[in-house]
Amino acid sequence: MSSEPPPDAAAAAASSAGDLAADLSSATISKKQLKKDARKAEKAEKASQRQQQQQPQADADDPFAANYGDVPVEEIQSKTISGRVWTEVGGLDEAAAGRSVLIRGAAQAIRPVSKKMAFVVLRESMSTVQCVLVASADAGVSTQMVRFATSLSKESIVDVEGVVSLPKEPLKATTQQVEIQVRKIYCINRAIPTLPINLEDASRSEAEIEKAEQAGEKLVRVGQDTRLNYRAIDLRTPANQAIFRIQCQVENKFREYFLSKNFVGIHSPKLIAGSSEGGAAVFKLQYNGQPACLAQSPQLYKQMAICGGFERVFEVGPVFRAENSNTHRHLCEFVGLDAEMEIKEHYFEVCDIIDGLFVAIFKHLNENCKKELETINRQYPFEPLKYLEKTLKLTYEEGIQMLKEAGTEIEPMGDLNTEAEKKLGRLVKEKYGTEFFILYRYPLAVRPFYTMPCYDNPAYSNSFDVFIRGEEIISGAQRIHLPELLTKRATECGIDASTISSYIESFSYGAPPHGGFGVGLERVVMLFCALNNIRKTSLFPRDPQRLVP
Amino acid sequence: MSSEPPPDAAAAAASSAGDLAADLSSATISKKQLKKDARKAEKAEKASQRQQQQQPQADADDPFAANYGDVPVEEIQSKTISGRVWTEVGGLDEAAAGRSVLIRGAAQAIRPVSKKMAFVVLRESMSTVQCVLVASADAGVSTQMVRFATSLSKESIVDVEGVVSLPKEPLKATTQQVEIQVRKIYCINRAIPTLPINLEDASRSEAEIEKAEQAGEKLVRVGQDTRLNYRAIDLRTPANQAIFRIQCQVENKFREYFLSKNFVGIHSPKLIAGSSEGGAAVFKLQYNGQPACLAQSPQLYKQMAICGGFERVFEVGPVFRAENSNTHRHLCEFVGLDAEMEIKEHYFEVCDIIDGLFVAIFKHLNENCKKELETINRQYPFEPLKYLEKTLKLTYEEGIQMLKEAGTEIEPMGDLNTEAEKKLGRLVKEKYGTEFFILYRYPLAVRPFYTMPCYDNPAYSNSFDVFIRGEEIISGAQRIHLPELLTKRATECGIDASTISSYIESFSYGAPPHGGFGVGLERVVMLFCALNNIRKTSLFPRDPQRLVP
Repeated sequence: MSSEPPPDAAAAAASSAGDLAADLSSATISKKQLKKDARKAEKAEKASQRQQQQQPQADADDPFAANYGDVPVEEIQSKTISGRVWTEVGGLDEAAAGRSVLIRGAAQAIRPVSKKMAFVVLRESMSTVQCVLVASADAGVSTQMVRFATSLSKESIVDVEGVVSLPKEPLKATTQQVEIQVRKIYCINRAIPTLPINLEDASRSEAEIEKAEQAGEKLVRVGQDTRLNYRAIDLRTPANQAIFRIQCQVENKFREYFLSKNFVGIHSPKLIAGSSEGGAAVFKLQYNGQPACLAQSPQLYKQMAICGGFERVFEVGPVFRAENSNTHRHLCEFVGLDAEMEIKEHYFEVCDIIDGLFVAIFKHLNENCKKELETINRQYPFEPLKYLEKTLKLTYEEGIQMLKEAGTEIEPMGDLNTEAEKKLGRLVKEKYGTEFFILYRYPLAVRPFYTMPCYDNPAYSNSFDVFIRGEEIISGAQRIHLPELLTKRATECGIDASTISSYIESFSYGAPPHGGFGVGLERVVMLFCALNNIRKTSLFPRDPQRLVP
Repeated sequence: MSSEPPPDAAAAAASSAGDLAADLSSATISKKQLKKDARKAEKAEKASQRQQQQQPQADADDPFAANYGDVPVEEIQSKTISGRVWTEVGGLDEAAAGRSVLIRGAAQAIRPVSKKMAFVVLRESMSTVQCVLVASADAGVSTQMVRFATSLSKESIVDVEGVVSLPKEPLKATTQQVEIQVRKIYCINRAIPTLPINLEDASRSEAEIEKAEQAGEKLVRVGQDTRLNYRAIDLRTPANQAIFRIQCQVENKFREYFLSKNFVGIHSPKLIAGSSEGGAAVFKLQYNGQPACLAQSPQLYKQMAICGGFERVFEVGPVFRAENSNTHRHLCEFVGLDAEMEIKEHYFEVCDIIDGLFVAIFKHLNENCKKELETINRQYPFEPLKYLEKTLKLTYEEGIQMLKEAGTEIEPMGDLNTEAEKKLGRLVKEKYGTEFFILYRYPLAVRPFYTMPCYDNPAYSNSFDVFIRGEEIISGAQRIHLPELLTKRATECGIDASTISSYIESFSYGAPPHGGFGVGLERVVMLFCALNNIRKTSLFPRDPQRLVP
């Protein structure tokens, strides 16, 4: 390992320190500035620490100096291909006892015991392991090395070489049931000494905080906004690692199910000329001099793909809603899971797909993502979702009748509000034992213009919503494939048909009857895990207030 | 089946006809208006045909009147669940001979032979089958039924019930080697009688057109722009059906490979505050009063996900480039396949992933998508891609040396232009027998600000491009994970670091060395199939001129 100080870091340290001195001499320091300064100071400290530890003379009297230290920058600039193999922390088990391993992880906890002993807990994605340093000439571990380890800032990236051992008592603080007896330890990248949020604080459940409060101890509660401001740290909590792995699994299962049913995955444009579904909730922009907007859904395009002969299509992609909705369940940008398919006779063919798809997703999560679900449960406890093997279908009229009998009057040709949906969810759960059901045959007036009216009563429509735990997650319907009727309905709904003429004309070239649905990926994960806020299931959420990070 | 005329269609017919008369009385009719009128006339004709054929008296003297006709609108509004099963056209083979089947498809060709006989070729996605009507009391087929079949407009959606039979001579005009002896035929949805483009014309290869020209016959050549204007028809050509199935398979294999290597699929926001990679090629918009733009790549966010502890991530999603590039290979919106991963020592770890991934994709397409590739080949002939089991890697310097030796001088610290890339592709193919290779160690000056410089010479970078058939499809690199260096490089590249402060700060919380790459899905398909225009591999392409459909 080269002992040269990294030139950039040293220069940065010098310059930052200079800036800081200049800033501090100023009489008018704002709070923001103070924060900035603190950060600069931290950076300077970090850089100088790095520089210091790389001074060869510091280790001149330590015969084991080569066994620890900060890895010089050039080494992490792709200098070497050593052929060494790193073992995954998650793969360390009792069977590995006695083996020498090399692992890389973040220093989640650093516990000095004495001058001669320290613990470092390393984390790699959802797994943690305890690394033990005991000064001993046999092991090549000096007291300087123990000091180096305890000088590491939390969350620094660290390489550890050591021997896997079985602890005398079972470990509680780590996910792995083995320890590493450290032989070598190198810091790959140092975190600033004081992080804006503590991972320990961010990982705590509400119950733990309350329990501590009852015992008179005040623990830090990290608010949702603070989490999002420092998302790169917040995402490291076990619950977040699990949430986004679950999200990935939902999408995988969605795709897998559709592919098994002969659907073709497509990608439709997000930059479009008209507004895809009408209404004001649309982001507008200039497209090379033409007015354009961001698609509120792939609706029109997935239908045109059906007209284009693809029979069954699905799409996973962002959808954009410029709504000023500051609720626990709305985002301005989310991931839409969309499907559209020819129907031979009846839009229940679409409902059957939804039934099969979601039961498959729920089963897959419960059976194959146990570790992730348990991890989420530790921080955010929830009851497993109740669902039936064959999904319950109720008409909208049956739904409002149930609400009426329970004392809630709904305007029969209107829509359900959030409260009524919640209540209906409770009533259905009591009566049918399921938290996942389809409500169909909605009044036409509350559905988008492209929804097919019912054959027997044009005040109703061949449409449905699907609910999880009393919240709507899916909207779907048979679509109008008759250009004259489509133009008529668009006009009735206040949409200038000329702005969507190429869409409407697509249906005059021979169009099969078809239907489909759309669902928000974040909502599926939020409601399956009974999380209380959709911002928890969006990697970098966008709401009316938030555009950063 | 009800014999009532569909009220909407009848009303539309009446009203359209009236409008048309009024229009024709006008003295100033523009070309556009004429087109419009033609469309209206077609619609009127269509509706009146429909109405006429549904008049019960028209069939009063036909004992087999129930065996054919236009299906009334109410029937296709989800009136019935009959339990009938439709057989897929693609599944009809010799083994089905003698079986009664029900199929649905588009009437691709209609050939009257006599008053008593006609052929209708039905198409379902990539498959076609010939349906034979022969008037016979035994079969329940009347001459009126034959007339009904021949009255159908091309591309109308049709249900046929019939018996599978083996033709006396092998069929050339259809993909299936069996025929259907028609017993019943119903029209589900009529296309307008004259389509803006003919599927036959749109499906022809350039070679066929030229051969006909040599024989003195002038065949219609459908231009790329016309195709895109009527994309809902153009997409029905066998080649297009195959292209987008190949595209779906590339994405599937991409995902499958990454999942097998422990990558997590993520979705990053497309609405962002800064511009993701600098430069002017960015779409700007207002986000609830704040200036925002559309992400030019998921670059900054996939790196933040790495800082967030996900180790290895991939994303499939739209990327937006407001470039005024009117070339065969640029789009303003395309589907980005992106990956980012921790690297232990060297960015060649990223190159190894690319090697494994693309060799897996190429193999999968060649082995499992034979039908699709043959179908594309019929309209757009191409040579299979030459690639090596272990992907060739050359340094940028080696590349420009090869060019120099072949007489092309390249500014050593500059970038390759399209022409030089093409030439290098040819040279590499000659020398190494591959059309897929990696060129690495590019000059730092021609790479984005977040690219890690080389440890031994900061004028070069730990970066690479990947080429297929002499065109660049992938850009990748090790990234800078040191906040000080990142700020310095951003500033040097003219980017205001304060606009990306949350990105830069992410690296101060303990950041692992990492690298990644991005590739355009449309380009992979275009170049694998040696297509001449990226608009052929985008479902609804967006270029500087095109925002519709």
